[in-house]
Amino acid sequence: MNVLKLGLPKGSLEETTVDMFARAGYKIDIQSRSYYPSIDDPEISCVLIRAQEMARYVQEGLLDCGLTGYDWVVENGADVVEIAELVYGKVGRKPLRWVLAVPNDSTITGPKDLEGKRIATEAVGMTQRYLAKHGVKANVEFSWGATEVKPPHLADAIVEITETGSSLKANNLKIIDTLCETTTRFIANKEAAKDPFKRKKMDQLALLLKAVLCAENRVGLMLNVHKDNLQAVLDKLPALQQPTVAHLSNEDWFSLTTVIDKDVARDLIPELMSAGAEGLVEYSLNKVIL
Amino acid sequence: MNVLKLGLPKGSLEETTVDMFARAGYKIDIQSRSYYPSIDDPEISCVLIRAQEMARYVQEGLLDCGLTGYDWVVENGADVVEIAELVYGKVGRKPLRWVLAVPNDSTITGPKDLEGKRIATEAVGMTQRYLAKHGVKANVEFSWGATEVKPPHLADAIVEITETGSSLKANNLKIIDTLCETTTRFIANKEAAKDPFKRKKMDQLALLLKAVLCAENRVGLMLNVHKDNLQAVLDKLPALQQPTVAHLSNEDWFSLTTVIDKDVARDLIPELMSAGAEGLVEYSLNKVIL
Amino acid sequence: MNVLKLGLPKGSLEETTVDMFARAGYKIDIQSRSYYPSIDDPEISCVLIRAQEMARYVQEGLLDCGLTGYDWVVENGADVVEIAELVYGKVGRKPLRWVLAVPNDSTITGPKDLEGKRIATEAVGMTQRYLAKHGVKANVEFSWGATEVKPPHLADAIVEITETGSSLKANNLKIIDTLCETTTRFIANKEAAKDPFKRKKMDQLALLLKAVLCAENRVGLMLNVHKDNLQAVLDKLPALQQPTVAHLSNEDWFSLTTVIDKDVARDLIPELMSAGAEGLVEYSLNKVIL
Amino acid sequence: MNVLKLGLPKGSLEETTVDMFARAGYKIDIQSRSYYPSIDDPEISCVLIRAQEMARYVQEGLLDCGLTGYDWVVENGADVVEIAELVYGKVGRKPLRWVLAVPNDSTITGPKDLEGKRIATEAVGMTQRYLAKHGVKANVEFSWGATEVKPPHLADAIVEITETGSSLKANNLKIIDTLCETTTRFIANKEAAKDPFKRKKMDQLALLLKAVLCAENRVGLMLNVHKDNLQAVLDKLPALQQPTVAHLSNEDWFSLTTVIDKDVARDLIPELMSAGAEGLVEYSLNKVIL
Amino acid sequence: MNVLKLGLPKGSLEETTVDMFARAGYKIDIQSRSYYPSIDDPEISCVLIRAQEMARYVQEGLLDCGLTGYDWVVENGADVVEIAELVYGKVGRKPLRWVLAVPNDSTITGPKDLEGKRIATEAVGMTQRYLAKHGVKANVEFSWGATEVKPPHLADAIVEITETGSSLKANNLKIIDTLCETTTRFIANKEAAKDPFKRKKMDQLALLLKAVLCAENRVGLMLNVHKDNLQAVLDKLPALQQPTVAHLSNEDWFSLTTVIDKDVARDLIPELMSAGAEGLVEYSLNKVIL
Amino acid sequence: MNVLKLGLPKGSLEETTVDMFARAGYKIDIQSRSYYPSIDDPEISCVLIRAQEMARYVQEGLLDCGLTGYDWVVENGADVVEIAELVYGKVGRKPLRWVLAVPNDSTITGPKDLEGKRIATEAVGMTQRYLAKHGVKANVEFSWGATEVKPPHLADAIVEITETGSSLKANNLKIIDTLCETTTRFIANKEAAKDPFKRKKMDQLALLLKAVLCAENRVGLMLNVHKDNLQAVLDKLPALQQPTVAHLSNEDWFSLTTVIDKDVARDLIPELMSAGAEGLVEYSLNKVIL
Repeated sequence: MNVLKLGLPKGSLEETTVDMFARAGYKIDIQSRSYYPSIDDPEISCVLIRAQEMARYVQEGLLDCGLTGYDWVVENGADVVEIAELVYGKVGRKPLRWVLAVPNDSTITGPKDLEGKRIATEAVGMTQRYLAKHGVKANVEFSWGATEVKPPHLADAIVEITETGSSLKANNLKIIDTLCETTTRFIANKEAAKDPFKRKKMDQLALLLKAVLCAENRVGLMLNVHKDNLQAVLDKLPALQQPTVAHLSNEDWFSLTTVIDKDVARDLIPELMSAGAEGLVEYSLNKVIL
Repeated sequence: MNVLKLGLPKGSLEETTVDMFARAGYKIDIQSRSYYPSIDDPEISCVLIRAQEMARYVQEGLLDCGLTGYDWVVENGADVVEIAELVYGKVGRKPLRWVLAVPNDSTITGPKDLEGKRIATEAVGMTQRYLAKHGVKANVEFSWGATEVKPPHLADAIVEITETGSSLKANNLKIIDTLCETTTRFIANKEAAKDPFKRKKMDQLALLLKAVLCAENRVGLMLNVHKDNLQAVLDKLPALQQPTVAHLSNEDWFSLTTVIDKDVARDLIPELMSAGAEGLVEYSLNKVIL
Repeated sequence: MNVLKLGLPKGSLEETTVDMFARAGYKIDIQSRSYYPSIDDPEISCVLIRAQEMARYVQEGLLDCGLTGYDWVVENGADVVEIAELVYGKVGRKPLRWVLAVPNDSTITGPKDLEGKRIATEAVGMTQRYLAKHGVKANVEFSWGATEVKPPHLADAIVEITETGSSLKANNLKIIDTLCETTTRFIANKEAAKDPFKRKKMDQLALLLKAVLCAENRVGLMLNVHKDNLQAVLDKLPALQQPTVAHLSNEDWFSLTTVIDKDVARDLIPELMSAGAEGLVEYSLNKVIL
Repeated sequence: MNVLKLGLPKGSLEETTVDMFARAGYKIDIQSRSYYPSIDDPEISCVLIRAQEMARYVQEGLLDCGLTGYDWVVENGADVVEIAELVYGKVGRKPLRWVLAVPNDSTITGPKDLEGKRIATEAVGMTQRYLAKHGVKANVEFSWGATEVKPPHLADAIVEITETGSSLKANNLKIIDTLCETTTRFIANKEAAKDPFKRKKMDQLALLLKAVLCAENRVGLMLNVHKDNLQAVLDKLPALQQPTVAHLSNEDWFSLTTVIDKDVARDLIPELMSAGAEGLVEYSLNKVIL
Repeated sequence: MNVLKLGLPKGSLEETTVDMFARAGYKIDIQSRSYYPSIDDPEISCVLIRAQEMARYVQEGLLDCGLTGYDWVVENGADVVEIAELVYGKVGRKPLRWVLAVPNDSTITGPKDLEGKRIATEAVGMTQRYLAKHGVKANVEFSWGATEVKPPHLADAIVEITETGSSLKANNLKIIDTLCETTTRFIANKEAAKDPFKRKKMDQLALLLKAVLCAENRVGLMLNVHKDNLQAVLDKLPALQQPTVAHLSNEDWFSLTTVIDKDVARDLIPELMSAGAEGLVEYSLNKVIL
Repeated sequence: MNVLKLGLPKGSLEETTVDMFARAGYKIDIQSRSYYPSIDDPEISCVLIRAQEMARYVQEGLLDCGLTGYDWVVENGADVVEIAELVYGKVGRKPLRWVLAVPNDSTITGPKDLEGKRIATEAVGMTQRYLAKHGVKANVEFSWGATEVKPPHLADAIVEITETGSSLKANNLKIIDTLCETTTRFIANKEAAKDPFKRKKMDQLALLLKAVLCAENRVGLMLNVHKDNLQAVLDKLPALQQPTVAHLSNEDWFSLTTVIDKDVARDLIPELMSAGAEGLVEYSLNKVIL
């Protein structure tokens, strides 16, 4: 029987990932201490793997596909196929970045000043490629974590991941360069991506997961409007999303159903009311495919 | 004033039951330590009773109706009317079973080998009827709980309830027969079922509780489709549930609203998109009456 | 740049208020220990202020507007504009009241008996105005809390806020008069209410907050009905809320969408089914503007 | 190898029992879901058994000894040897009692009025012996719990265990007779009690457990006193416990060490200071054997 | 019967106070929602009162005695007797202070600059006396809490209580004067202090509570020493606390018992070992009266 | 000023370490997210470092001393001085071991069978030295954790740390060899160990920490004995620990004070009572230096 071997990221993204799959329609059960979660689709088998190792195992074919960060694809220099980019969480949050940081009072101002220095990082490969690109030789040390507390005594500079930079600031470090921006990717092994059964399975997963993420930032809207006000109300609605307009039994009235961004609701709703909308109702959505 | 006396199951199902009634529209308030919960309908009075004892009290007319397991109706040999079967929880989970279990290395292989043995169980009546049916005489001992740890020292066999069998397996027991499968039932006293006021009240409760349970496993779906693709999309939808099809103001387009099983959504949605659906939206439901 | 200075009530209503704003579309972030929450609208700045002090600061113009109880507007004798009344929570709960209470065995039966007595209260001003109205002189002491435990040893009577009276009863007190009923109000400074920018901003907030509170007690209903039963079904629906009626493609059938009170759902749904409704579905709502 | 089979009470006393054994010097480890706790003495093997069943298994020799309530020894009419009475918890708390209780407004005033009535209880045997003693015939029904909520609809009277009676009072019941007072007992099988190895093992356990319980209510006291005040200080100390009096190097002074009841410390210490004690120190104790 | 009416501080000190009384030998039980805790001494009755109101009620004789801060004695200008000062918590922590604070960039540098300014505070009386002393007139407003967030918009300066000043610093305020330092006091009504029964009761409480607080910062030490090293070891011990020296049965050896400050143990113990101590043991203490 | 740079192990041992230092007399404060804990001794500065990296930094002199496992000293091949071995926790627990483990059904039975296999481990160096010793060549892969779930699909064998082996068993692995046993060590830089100030500081820490660990497994014992029984009682006491024997004022009696192993208390106490001990008391200890 055909089975798709799927790698899920162990650790901080674990719970969010299981929740996202549940909303997509896949029930994943993680037994405590087990690394082989059950999934209610006999054509998929799951493994929990650290994001750092995911790309390696996908490239070698031990896994058909998996979710990991773009950064670790780069770090592993992995030769894999990207099926989809999945932006977990809210629109508008800052992307994660791998940055070069040094103490606030350091004399290092850019990659050229790193010659002969000691750099601590969890991403040794990425850092070495960065140094090579700038023609600099430095001592890159693998760090087991808590990298940001090492300068100035245990390192001269670090290469570290950050969202807001606040943890770096709290340790008296300043960012002097960015090596890589990263989001979550759904990646596949090259051979698996050519196998019709596996490819269809992966495309189905990608469609559903993206529908879930799309719904997170949107709400449904229903309202009634008299024919005299219909155009005014339609003019207020965002251009890209075509609303559904139905005749009511009273021919002078229309019922309008649409999907809008959560972000614009608070400004749009008062405008729609002013333009003649009546009986307006807003409700939550599970999945949206526009 | 007419009042319906309703028994609710004390114990493991308590919280789930209160939650299910809340979604049906009845607010039940259980004061800690009180066994007479308040309910916001003056025509109903509630009592919390152990599921084991429910059927007995309903038969005797001390209660008009109540929720309990089919197993305890059988155990009590109770003469009551079944108003509705209520399958709490998810479609597809294994039913609860009362089974005969013995140590993995026991020589007992079926009921015939129980002659003269010591059997521990919480369901003495059910076990004795089972033995009588097989013409076997054995020593049936009532167990206060933790039945599965008694063999081999304190019992030769047990009759115990199980969903997945994992607790039995963990105690080195194997299942050798099934005595009874069971789900929750809404049962009524025979006289109460003939009383018009009480019967109407019970039918209303049954309608609303089933609507809540039905909604748990379903989602709403809205989509738009061009007239050329309408039949193709309709063909994909499960036959039994008639979708609502409305003309849009642009006469070439239709709006389609329907209810589908949560279980099929992940396979159905990609197919609907392939068949020409647009602007597809999925949302949650509180109650469904098909 | 124009900014609306908005006061939010610090304390017991804090979490509920933030949640209500979130559903209205405004993300408020309260850093622990900070009293200046961030809000994701650059045209609004927030301050957390005790409800007792809100009206004072709004009247003086240190704040443009704020949420507080009607009681504290009265207590402060504040000259402010009321933008909206916001009934947090469920329809049907008893309003909060400031009452005059005395020990069960006290000989005090009304305001006239208070002459020369010791009265403990958090609302000194309200109490003094009440005494003046009745031409009575008494010793009004400000209480830092736990007012209801002071009689009979530390006070002869108290003026205290209560919802159900149960805390008073538990302390062997009886209510002998009501000074003031109160709900939450959205109040504005008189000048701010005349400023076009600020007024529009406040009206938008009021519209959205009321839409959220309205949705809390309502659900959406969709059903199909044959033309022969349409009138019978329409007759069952509450008169004030106009349902949306759409033709289906099969011209003999109609689709009906409406909003009803949660409270009536459990009685209405069985009646609609009896009157010929089919495929009935109930769902939750975020916002309702009728 | 010789092994003592020891039964520990499963349920409400479980955690307290493990803790008491730990202070006695025995580390018991209860794996979740396992009923065979490990103990760090190879000459003892433990089983967790409900207190209700303990005496039965000890009498039959399936267990050599166990901890259970005196009530369940009586209920089972078990022929066992009592090794020690163990009063868990604080001195001065009321003993647990099995009582006959009826609704406050019942006409039943004593056992004689029970003729033909329905009595619910967890202790069927004890209740039947009680009825027989009074020459009364009544319908005794086994109750699965929540016995106190059954009168008046489901029972006319109950026989139930109680410490303070508050749960009975909360259910509008009054106590009209006491059937049995009970404390925890360390009981042994008759044959096991004659076996030298097992008896010595049980006596050791009894000695250590009683030493732990004795220490719970006592504290150590050290103080210095001049020879002129020695007798005055000694006169203040409770007569039964002989204090240790040692000469100090300065021959005019004595050091005094003793053990006193926690309860008297607050009154005794000021008196000792008045009588001439100096450098007084109070400290906690693990075990006390007086 | 004679009864001492004792006020306990409601709020942040509540749990610590109950715990301190327990170690002193008095079991206080606070029922949730009740303000009259039970105590296991029939000659004492307790009331929970806000620290702010304690001195007022003690002065008027509604309470015989109570625990409150020195600051609130001053704020109320109360004429009461101080029985004892009780320094809760660790030696060495900074005392609580009421300070005058202004924004970091304020031009106010001392009391003289407050003329005509707006000052927010919970201690209106203390602030007014302070202003009067400096011959300054300002607008003192009672603050219901969160005083430190009011400057600069809602106040020009505040008078607030602080331990470390960190909350002020976090709100960009600087301290420019100190009005009052404060610790917890055990205060009594003047008449009650003259009543022999009540005075004896209060002195007993003060003795035991101080013994508990004294023990918190001390440990017991036992060691053996040869006569040749006795003087060297004695020389190391802190002068004020006379150690207990006992002859051992071997006349060349002495046993030494003493009480030392927790703070010095880490330096003292190595020195004692160097001076010839053997078999050194350190243990915890419940009460110490030196 | 002289300062000792001390490394504390970050991670699972963190809380235990802080607690052990507290009992030794050093208050360490770990701010959340900070890696430079404060300590209340100005002559010490602390850093939190992963145990894996400690030995490396101590060897290079970036730290003067630190606490880490013997395994990581070996893994790093570090040239450092061992000041003390500190056995955290209970006497008698199994030491931690690094083991070679393979699937239960693997054909690998010892190091020789590893030729050409894939081995996953967190201790790459230790594993490679082990392979070299056996003259075997294999593919050693660094594992980011969850090593035990990798066989058989992602690895053929693993080298992993274990205490009881239960986690390995739960993953269907069997242990076939032990590479290293390990406990916690207090290690120092070679130069620092020669510096008089630093050495004295480290010796003081070692003395106090060992006194705390020693007290964990011991209790104090006080008893009285008549001169006729003195020798019999002394004969029962463990030989190595000299008890303190003091004359009582009644010359026929002696008071005996000693320290014994917790483990032997349960057997020793009954024997002492049999030999004539009276008034026996057992109490807990904070520090013990024998």
